[in-house]
Amino acid sequence: MKVTVLGAGAWGTALAKVLVEGGHQVSMWARHPEHVQSILTRGENERYLPGVNLSGIKGLGGDLDQAVADAECLVVSVPSKAFREVTHQLGAFRGMVVSVTKGIELDTGLTMCGILHETVPQAKRVALSGPTLAAEVARRIPTAIVAASEDEEAARTVQQLFHRPYLRAYRSSDPLGVELGGALKNVVAIAAGAGDGLGLGDNSKAALITRGIVEIRRFGVACGADAETFSGLSGLGDLTVTCYSRLSRNRMFGDRLGRGERPEGIVKESVAIAEGYPTARSAYRLAQKLAVSTPIIDEVYAVLYEGKNVGKALQDLVQRETKPE
Amino acid sequence: MKVTVLGAGAWGTALAKVLVEGGHQVSMWARHPEHVQSILTRGENERYLPGVNLSGIKGLGGDLDQAVADAECLVVSVPSKAFREVTHQLGAFRGMVVSVTKGIELDTGLTMCGILHETVPQAKRVALSGPTLAAEVARRIPTAIVAASEDEEAARTVQQLFHRPYLRAYRSSDPLGVELGGALKNVVAIAAGAGDGLGLGDNSKAALITRGIVEIRRFGVACGADAETFSGLSGLGDLTVTCYSRLSRNRMFGDRLGRGERPEGIVKESVAIAEGYPTARSAYRLAQKLAVSTPIIDEVYAVLYEGKNVGKALQDLVQRETKPE
Repeated sequence: MKVTVLGAGAWGTALAKVLVEGGHQVSMWARHPEHVQSILTRGENERYLPGVNLSGIKGLGGDLDQAVADAECLVVSVPSKAFREVTHQLGAFRGMVVSVTKGIELDTGLTMCGILHETVPQAKRVALSGPTLAAEVARRIPTAIVAASEDEEAARTVQQLFHRPYLRAYRSSDPLGVELGGALKNVVAIAAGAGDGLGLGDNSKAALITRGIVEIRRFGVACGADAETFSGLSGLGDLTVTCYSRLSRNRMFGDRLGRGERPEGIVKESVAIAEGYPTARSAYRLAQKLAVSTPIIDEVYAVLYEGKNVGKALQDLVQRETKPE
Repeated sequence: MKVTVLGAGAWGTALAKVLVEGGHQVSMWARHPEHVQSILTRGENERYLPGVNLSGIKGLGGDLDQAVADAECLVVSVPSKAFREVTHQLGAFRGMVVSVTKGIELDTGLTMCGILHETVPQAKRVALSGPTLAAEVARRIPTAIVAASEDEEAARTVQQLFHRPYLRAYRSSDPLGVELGGALKNVVAIAAGAGDGLGLGDNSKAALITRGIVEIRRFGVACGADAETFSGLSGLGDLTVTCYSRLSRNRMFGDRLGRGERPEGIVKESVAIAEGYPTARSAYRLAQKLAVSTPIIDEVYAVLYEGKNVGKALQDLVQRETKPE
């Protein structure tokens, strides 16, 4: 299949490699053509995925029209804040669009497939998500992932497209749940990282994850997702990996908060966005609108956007979350 | 309240400390009286919980009759294989018996409260469980725990007995589910540790945890427990902490297997039992009897008791667990 990957961050690059290994014709597009050019020249994404051989990928520079014209399938892996703008340019594309971006749009409360529904209405939309650290997938370390779509045939196609001996793909018919699980876990991971930074232990992280998945499920169900989805790879699985891995940007973001750094400073210094940062705000706003109780999201929001002390926030969370009934 | 803790391992000792801090009169009993005597003399459990101040605990040496006569509440924290024998000697005790032991009896398939039902039929039975590493609780690091009983009043009493600013106690009316969650997670933790020892990554561990909780829930429901229990502290929470913490005996057991050590050798060298070792066998047997599908337990059993190669077992697990539908 002819596939174009939009976005040349760590995850887009790792997925391009997976597709090349599956024998597909893979092109990459990025907002900055010199970034793709550098990958082609060096056979490596030095900035986001160093040390991984990327031969076999074709480049498209910055021409998005060409990316669309050539492809049967587009994999969109751009930051959530650029998602609408980029996909808006895909126009009348009628093939398959796979979103691998995890986030919630601030003004609309939409997930990425929700945005695709507006920007590329004629395409088949699939969300691909799960506990998938890019650096591990790129190194062929065993990983499970889930392809979710309301269109079963499309989900099956994407499942087969990415399935490898080291990358086992499942299917789901609940893209909304899969996307919300992927987006919201980043917010909980910031709280988990803050606990790490403050020197809290494994017991409290386990309690946070347990309460976190309950909160994510409650939020998701209020949005119309299936409760069951959040016990799966994109809910519990992704939450777990993100809260524990040293490779997780969102956990690291929280860790630095816990050590006393200011959120704006961390954002400014970061090479790649920790999606939990914008998601905390859009999730907080959406939760208010839906009147759903989200103690973890509320506290993360307060730390990130209202200047609340991170130690005080975690303390309030413990009091609020674990009082005996 | 007058409480006697039976068993002076790390967890029994940490709970004795929690009770002393709550202003209760706490005595400790152990099979080897010199062990308790050493704790009293040194104010420290040097073998199992070094570095933690244990002043305020009273000793009972090895006289179990005295332990029973004096106490309103007994906390049983002995290894599962000694559980029936020890509690059988409690005779006609009519107070509260709290089990904190995680296991399944091999011959009967009973959890510890199931054994108590036979050995101390007139007592009120409560299971106390959750993601609670002893070393963290002893250091007052925030932790959540759950007290489960069919007798709501008894659960409430135990909840209040252990509740502290750093130890938040919840209640559950499903002791069977709470106990099975606590017992079975040790088996999954051995698999997770084996993955660590073999150099697998965070993605595969997250997938294992996700599939593990599904397997534990399926097993528990087949035994008559509530499905919901396994999403709580004693299911998901305890599974998570055990699969990730460097302090977990069961994860470490698996890690050593993954590095090529033989199970019998690890057992022989260990100061304290990794309960996942006997539980793998009793859970395997019970699963066969109930005809419930338990791929993770099956593979751990095969490695521990049938000499199967650990790398092959994990490979078979990946093939069996994550094939696309």
